[in-house]
This record gives sequence, C-alpha cells and structure tokens, in this order.
Amino acid sequence: MLRRNFMNHPAPPIFKRELPAELLSALQARFADRLSTTQAMREHHGRDESSYDPMLPDAVVFAQTIDDVAAAVSLCNQYRFPVIAYGTGTSLEGHILAVQGGLSIDLSQMNQVVALNAEDLTVTVQPGVTRKQLNAEIKDTGLFFPIDPGADASIGGMTATRASGTNAVRYGTMRENVLALTVVTADGKVIKTGTRAKKSSAGYDLTRLFVGSEGTLGIIVEITLKLYPQPEAISAAVCSFPSIERAVNAVIQTIQMGVPVARVEFLDETSVRALNAHDKLSLPEKPLLLFEFHGSEHGVKEQAEVVQQIADEHDATGFEWATRPEDRSRLWQARHNAYFALLQLRPGSRAISTDCCVPISRLAECLLATKEDIEREGVTHGIIGHVGDGNFHVQMIIDPNDPADIARAEGVNERMVSRAIAMQGTCTGEHGIGLHKIDFLVQESGEDTVDVMRTIKHALDPHNIFNPGKVLRW
Amino acid sequence: MLRRNFMNHPAPPIFKRELPAELLSALQARFADRLSTTQAMREHHGRDESSYDPMLPDAVVFAQTIDDVAAAVSLCNQYRFPVIAYGTGTSLEGHILAVQGGLSIDLSQMNQVVALNAEDLTVTVQPGVTRKQLNAEIKDTGLFFPIDPGADASIGGMTATRASGTNAVRYGTMRENVLALTVVTADGKVIKTGTRAKKSSAGYDLTRLFVGSEGTLGIIVEITLKLYPQPEAISAAVCSFPSIERAVNAVIQTIQMGVPVARVEFLDETSVRALNAHDKLSLPEKPLLLFEFHGSEHGVKEQAEVVQQIADEHDATGFEWATRPEDRSRLWQARHNAYFALLQLRPGSRAISTDCCVPISRLAECLLATKEDIEREGVTHGIIGHVGDGNFHVQMIIDPNDPADIARAEGVNERMVSRAIAMQGTCTGEHGIGLHKIDFLVQESGEDTVDVMRTIKHALDPHNIFNPGKVLRW
Repeated sequence: MLRRNFMNHPAPPIFKRELPAELLSALQARFADRLSTTQAMREHHGRDESSYDPMLPDAVVFAQTIDDVAAAVSLCNQYRFPVIAYGTGTSLEGHILAVQGGLSIDLSQMNQVVALNAEDLTVTVQPGVTRKQLNAEIKDTGLFFPIDPGADASIGGMTATRASGTNAVRYGTMRENVLALTVVTADGKVIKTGTRAKKSSAGYDLTRLFVGSEGTLGIIVEITLKLYPQPEAISAAVCSFPSIERAVNAVIQTIQMGVPVARVEFLDETSVRALNAHDKLSLPEKPLLLFEFHGSEHGVKEQAEVVQQIADEHDATGFEWATRPEDRSRLWQARHNAYFALLQLRPGSRAISTDCCVPISRLAECLLATKEDIEREGVTHGIIGHVGDGNFHVQMIIDPNDPADIARAEGVNERMVSRAIAMQGTCTGEHGIGLHKIDFLVQESGEDTVDVMRTIKHALDPHNIFNPGKVLRW
Repeated sequence: MLRRNFMNHPAPPIFKRELPAELLSALQARFADRLSTTQAMREHHGRDESSYDPMLPDAVVFAQTIDDVAAAVSLCNQYRFPVIAYGTGTSLEGHILAVQGGLSIDLSQMNQVVALNAEDLTVTVQPGVTRKQLNAEIKDTGLFFPIDPGADASIGGMTATRASGTNAVRYGTMRENVLALTVVTADGKVIKTGTRAKKSSAGYDLTRLFVGSEGTLGIIVEITLKLYPQPEAISAAVCSFPSIERAVNAVIQTIQMGVPVARVEFLDETSVRALNAHDKLSLPEKPLLLFEFHGSEHGVKEQAEVVQQIADEHDATGFEWATRPEDRSRLWQARHNAYFALLQLRPGSRAISTDCCVPISRLAECLLATKEDIEREGVTHGIIGHVGDGNFHVQMIIDPNDPADIARAEGVNERMVSRAIAMQGTCTGEHGIGLHKIDFLVQESGEDTVDVMRTIKHALDPHNIFNPGKVLRW
C-alpha cells in the first residue's frame, strides 16, 4: 500500500508485482555482482527528495553500458516486471518510488562525456553525468551548460523530468536544450532520436516526447545537449521592494521590455529573514529580487541600468551591484540555501514545495491570492520563485506529526494549483507529475488530452513496465 | 498512380479510397455550399509548391469553426476516408497531395486572432491566420512574431511542418515558439495541449508531437505562440568573400562567439549574379553574407563591429551597413527574390530545392563537397542558406522535359542528403518529409526509430485517415 507522510491524495491503484525467480536468475547471470538485492541498496533506491515514504524496488542493477540497459529492459519486459531508471534520486514528486515493486536501473556509473563538439556548441553525455560534473569537464572550452535546477542532478534525470531552474528565463529548459537522445524502448531496442543539427523538420519529434516522460516511455541512455559560450561579462544585482506586488510588477515590465536577463529570482520577506539568520546576512527584510546579467561588458551594464530604472519606478530600495565573482557567489549561494534556511524557522519541521507556473501578467495576482490563503490558514512558509518565467515555489514548513497542519498545507496547495490552472498556467513548472500530480494533470489538460497521452503510453509500453504508476493512470 | 515531374523516388504504396456516397451526403447535409466537388476547387487543393504533379482530393470543405473540423473528421473516420488539412498550399514536399484521395479541409476561413495577450508576449490564433497577417494585426502592440519561412504561409501550416527560416538563428523555429495547441483527433474529439505558461513539466509534450507531424496525427485548429518585443534598433550588413569556405568560416566563428545575430544568410556567386540581373543590383559577384542585428542602439552597433572584425579576418570585402529601413528592405527583398532570380537564369526551367542542415562545424565541408558534385554533374544551380543554423538550400535549375537533367539533379540531392546524415545532420532543416523524404527519414533515423513513430501513428490514427502516405509508410 502506498503511504505518504504529508499529502492525502488518492493513491494510484497499486498492485505489487512479484519478482519472478527466473527473472532474478537471468539478471544474476547477466550482471553478477552488479545486481544487488540488499535491504540497504533497495532503501537507497526507493526514496527521493519528496515527502513520500520510501517504496523499495526488489533489486538494483548498476548499468555500465547501453547494452546493459537493453538487456535488463528486455528481460523485464519478457517477465512484465517494472523497470525504474535511477540517476541521483533528487526528484521531488516521488518519481522513482517502486510503487509496484520492480528493478531499479542505477545509471550513475554511466557517467562519461561521450563526445564534446565545442565547435558546434554541442556535447553528448551518458545519463549519469551530473550537471556540475559536465560544467567542470567542459570548463576549458569556454562553453557552459546553463540549466541549473538547484540539485546536482544527473543529466538523464533532468531530461526525464524536463528540468529547468534559475537560468531558464534566458536559456530555456531541457525542452529547448536537448538536441538528440538514445533511448532503450520496451522491447529492448536502442533507438536514436534527433541529430546534432540545430534544427530539423524530419518526422515526429520523439526527442521532446521522451524529454519529460519521467521514465514511463523508455530509458534515456545518451543525451546530446546544446552548450553556450561563457559570457564575456556577468554581473548580479539585488534590490528590495515595499510589497510583493511592486517586486513582481518590476519583473513583468523587465520581461515585457525584452531585457535578456539571465536570472531573476524572487524571495519573499520570510525567506529573506530566514536567509539572514542562516547565512548571517543583513538584507532588508522585505520582498527581494536577485538579478544576473550575461553579455558583453557594455551589454551587461546596459541591462542593469534598464533594470535599475524599472526597479526605481516600482519604489525599489537598496539597489546593489555585484560584479566581483565572490560577491555574486555569496548572493547566489544564499539563494540556493533558501530551502534549508526556511526549514530552520521551525525545528523538527519538513517542507512541502509547490511548483506552479502562470503567464507572467497573472503572477502578482496568483502570488498575492496564494499568500492571503496561506496566511489565513496560518501555515509557516516562504515563497521563492523563478519569476521571470512566472514560476514560483511556496515552501510550506509543517510538522510532519500534525495531521491538521498537513491538511492545511495540502488545502493551500490544491487551491493554488486550481488558481494557476484557471489563469491558464500549469500545475508544475519544473518538478514534474510523478506520483503526486496525476490528478492535477487531468485537471490541467482534461481527460481527453490525458487519454491521448495514455494511448501513447499503451502503444510504446504495452506491458506497463516503465515506471508504472507515474504521470498517469494505466 | 503517383507521378511526379522530377524525382524518381519509389512512390509510397498507393490505393485510392473511394468517397462513399453516404459520406458525401452527410458532408453535404452538414456543410451545404461550403462543400465543393468542382474540378477547379479540387485542382486548387491538390497541388503545393513542390515539383509533384497534382493529386486531387475528392471534395473540399471550408471550415469556419472547430466544430466544423471535428464534424468533418468524425464523419471521415467513421467511413475511413482520408482527411487533408489545407492552409495556403505553400508546402514544398508534396504534403497536401491527396495520394489516396480524400477530403481537403480548407482552414483559410478560420483566420481570426483569438486572443492577444501582449502583456504575456503570447497570442492565440486560428490556423488560417498567415504570418504577415498576424504581424500586421499585432503591430501596434510593439510586439512581433519572428518566424519567417519566406512564403506568407498560414500559422497552422507552419506549425504542422515545424517551419523556420531566416530569423531562426536567434528566435528558434516553430518547435520553440508554439506554447499550446488545440487539436482535433481521429475520433473527432477536441483536445488542448500545453498552456500559456512559459514552461511546464506536466506530462508528455503533446504540443511538440503535433508540431511537425504534417497533418498525420490530427488537425491543428488553434495555436498559441510566443511573441517578442520589436527590437529598439535593427541594422543590416552585407559583405563579400573570396571563397565559400571563407564566408562559412566567418559564420561559424560568429556563432561560436555567441554573437546574437538575428539573421545570417549566405548566397553563392551564382545567386548573387542572378540577383544583380533580376533586381538591377551591383553586388560583387562573389560569395556573400547578409546579416541582420536586433537589439539596443549600442548592442546592435557592438554586434556589427564584432562581425565586421570577424569578416575582415576572413578576407571579406565591401562590408556595408544598412541602418535605414528602406536600405534594409531592399537588401532583404533581394534575398527573398533569389528563388525567382535563379529561375530566370534558364528560361522555361523549374527548380528543385534541397534542404539539408548539418552541425555548423561541418557546413563548409558539406557545402564544398556538394558544390563540387553539382559542378561535376553540370547542373545549373544557386546555393542560398540560413547558415547560422547550418541549413542551406541548393536550387537546381533544371529542364522539366529532360530526364537526364532530372536524374543528375536527383543524384546530387541523394548524395547530399547522405553526406549531411553522415555528418550527423538532417535531411530536412525546415521543409519537412512530405512525400519526397520518406526514405531519407529512414536513412536518417533508422528503421527502429521510424517504427516508434509508426506505432504512435497507428495508435492515434488507427484507420489512417490523417494525410495518409506522408512522413512514413503505414
């Protein structure tokens, strides 16, 4: 049975599938000591960073080659046994929990850069390469890979959840930055989608069908990504606003004017207060925006000047520059610490993170209505957001042992998702559907649209072996 | 039987389906005088701008609402009769030819802007809106829609073929610029994919599955697009090079340095000569690059200076600026006239247009090998290209009544496609697969990948009613 700590959504219909003894023998014969069934290994692969209780796979295999993955999938398909791809375990919606049992395919040993084509601004990697590792390995080329979801996730996992993060406002998400994939399909075949050409009109866009499919249509075993020249100049700026509305309206105007900001992050008053305590900072405890600009020396200066002028028009105070790398790092490190800082507001607590994204003109309205709701419910919280994209996260800090607290938080989340959908937005900007948002996906897209998704799932994975119970109901 | 003027590819297996009398009656009852079976109307809807002979649909219906489309599709699905969406008829690979007969659904009367959300930089349009119409209607908002494939195509058709064109190097293609769709599926249901949020991780990316599906998976009846602020400043520049190689290497370096050029077009010596004759220009008859820069006044100047320096390093001559709108228009009009100018090199001729796209580092090599091949074969030709994306078109000017001429051109095309694929490029950058490139798609992607596409086609369109005989074999 599926349990969870916090959320009280109806669980997807679960039946645990038994690991057939013949399958286990075949896997042992093929993988020897790279197959593990120890409790510790299963526990490690049965949890992510969501608030769900762990649900353990029956076995874990460490894949080292595409052939390994194809062999494991092929065997599991033969025995109709679930297969769950595992990268770094940093997903946030229960994506890797083995709700029907299954074989976890750990891809972390497939961590090589396969081909670096700096002259084309592309790189091809194995799925276990993490984003920080990638940027370290390509540093000398003068190029970088911009997608930064916070966690040092694997590129395979980031592809599978269509990740994005702070830089997406300028560089797009995984949707825009994956050029080509190699994928193992349910029958154990290895297919290639896309090419290294920057654009193509050749047939159905299978690349983008697999991007964001959360391991439910196939296992991604190679990814070709776009890279970008490291900007000649980078600067950061920070400023405070008298209200959330003023801060958000400044962002809206910045985007509408087409200023190519690289990042623009919002922190509410509570988040700033938590950061000040956690990082020993002395930021004004008011709604805050944090900008980063990429470009030529002059271009960066020009962008910052336009933004400062917009901020002034919205009664910003304390506009401050940070052009030295160490000052920029300090500010951005603080932003990355926001989650942990918020947890410390209430010792013993856990966080529920929400993930709505709305058209930018509705952002202030959505944030303010949500804020009003949370305050009415009396839930401890902080709001941080990739506001340039209309995406924000409410971190609700709750007592995991207090059902009333949990119910209040869940109510806030449900109303917020409904609000975002009514504003023509989405229930998840970047975290994915996983286990938690299956019903929200139906609410957002409609039954008929989810039926089309289901038709595709049934056609490509007829025995429902790929990460069953996620994204949609079978 | 499928005939064509020029190309000698094996035709897809064709069987003409008969229009059932009951279906015709039902359509007449539903659409009255908006249904036509006249020869003239059928001829108009049975040809595109490819070199294929026309293949006529059995009837044409003029849809005015989503309900019209759903009703027509539903009836055709019931009788398993083909349905072909028609926009402006400007496709280039035989996309709209009724190879099995069928009902052509003309969407040109669905030409309204449904919702303009200037504050979010989005617009929702009916499929019959053309790109020029769209830009005229939104002009006063200070926004524009950048995708420009040359022809004044309909937004529905551009979406269905994943079109791009000159501006794609900066703004992306239809792949990157469609946010959401409304689609009529084979059972006549109306589904919505995507939202107006700038990003989302909610479920399978059906939006991008329909973008580029060439009418074979459903009929696109509403499209939500990204818009962009009109740049504060625009300038153009033109310069000539002693060789194709130098010109292309200058482009490669520009892209690698991350200069955000809005357009960069290449014309070979023959194209320039043809243009001089056609447009009474006096451009140096050497390989030429034509740039456009978008940005702030200073940003545009800075970009052009960097490009001029790169061009100088590659022995460019005659670097010339055009900042006045009328001078820019004259240059770009000349670029748009290149196709017609080339045709006049050989009176009575027709053109075969190719459409490869390769990783940019291989562009010079691909172009030079192709040039050598064409010259060896003695085919009259000009080369123009969206070289910033690695995409180029060889216009082969041939005598439609000379089988040897046709065979030479076809040989050049086949070898060029193979060369592009070997360089990890694609057989079509922006024109699509249609009838002509079905085998090239298999060569590019592999049988197993096309099998996955076919599985999706079979699942979503079980009676093969949507534009049968295109993209892949049933």
